[in-house]
Amino acid sequence: METSKAIYKRRSVRKYTNEKVSEEELHKLIASGMMAPSAGNRQPWHFITVTDPKLLSQVAQVNPNAGMASRAPAGILVCGDTELEMHPGYWVQDCSAAVQNILLAAHDTGLGAVWTGIWPKTDRVEGFKELFGLPETVHPLAFLVIGRPDKDSTEQDSPDRFLKERIRGEHW
Amino acid sequence: METSKAIYKRRSVRKYTNEKVSEEELHKLIASGMMAPSAGNRQPWHFITVTDPKLLSQVAQVNPNAGMASRAPAGILVCGDTELEMHPGYWVQDCSAAVQNILLAAHDTGLGAVWTGIWPKTDRVEGFKELFGLPETVHPLAFLVIGRPDKDSTEQDSPDRFLKERIRGEHW
Repeated sequence: METSKAIYKRRSVRKYTNEKVSEEELHKLIASGMMAPSAGNRQPWHFITVTDPKLLSQVAQVNPNAGMASRAPAGILVCGDTELEMHPGYWVQDCSAAVQNILLAAHDTGLGAVWTGIWPKTDRVEGFKELFGLPETVHPLAFLVIGRPDKDSTEQDSPDRFLKERIRGEHW
Repeated sequence: METSKAIYKRRSVRKYTNEKVSEEELHKLIASGMMAPSAGNRQPWHFITVTDPKLLSQVAQVNPNAGMASRAPAGILVCGDTELEMHPGYWVQDCSAAVQNILLAAHDTGLGAVWTGIWPKTDRVEGFKELFGLPETVHPLAFLVIGRPDKDSTEQDSPDRFLKERIRGEHW
C-alpha cells in the first residue's frame, strides 16, 4: 500500500485470528526494521522471534501490559546492544526507529501488531533478560505482539492525531 | 510510493538544492510524525519548524554533527515533554517513532532528510534548550535537517542492511 496510507491507517492491533505467522514472515518484518537509520549507522540491534505458545504466555506474565501475547501466534523481542554502539545512549532511538519500520511493514502486509514497552522499567527489563537469557550488554527494548487482525480490530479507523498546538515556528 | 519502497530506499540525505521547503510541507511531515504510536497514546511531543537561515546556521554550531543544517533550507526540532507522559521514560521511544514516520514521509514526497542526534548528549541538549528557549520539561531529542536532495544524494542506492546473525529464535 501507499506509504502515507500505512502511516495513517496503522493502528495497534491487540486481537488476532488463530492463523499462524511464519518465521519467514517475521524475518521479512525484521528486515524492514534493519533498514532504519541508526547513530553512526552502527545498527546496534538484535531480534528474537517467538512463536512458541508457552513462551508467548510467559511474555504475558513478565509484562502486565502484554496480556494479548498469550492469545497471539507470534511476537518479536527487540533488543539493543550497548557493545555495538559508537555513540553511547543512542540505542534506544535506533531500536525505536526499527520498531516503527516493523509496525508499518506489518500493517502493509496485512498483519497486525502492537508495541508493548519494556525499557526502561527495571522489573520488565529483568524479567525479559531472564526469560530470554540475554547477555549483560543486550537490553530488551520492546516486545512486538503480532498476528492477523481479527474482524473487531480492523473495523475501527485510526483517529487523526494531528495537534496544531504542538507545532511552533523558529522558537518555542 | 509503496511502503516497502519507502522503507528500503530511504537514506540519510545531507546535500540539498537551494529550493525552499514550505511551512505547509513541514506541517505535513509533522502530521505523519504525529501518527506514530506512543506509550499510553500520550503523544508527548512538540515540533519546532525552522526555515530561518541564521537559525539553521546556529543549529550547525550547537551540534557538530549537523553541519549540513547551515546549507539546508529547513529543519524540524523534535522534542519530548516529560509533563505529558503517563509512563515515565518512554518519551524517547515515542518521539523516535515519530521521527521515523517523518523520515519515511519525507522520502515518500521527494524530500531528503537526515536525523541528527541531540539527546542524551548533555552539551547538545543544553545548547538546543538555550537556542530554542525550551521550557524545563521539554527535551530536545533530534534535529531533522530537510531539503530537496541534490543529484549526488539521489544517485546512490540504499545498501541492504539485513544481518541474519542478528536474528534468533525463541531464545538468545
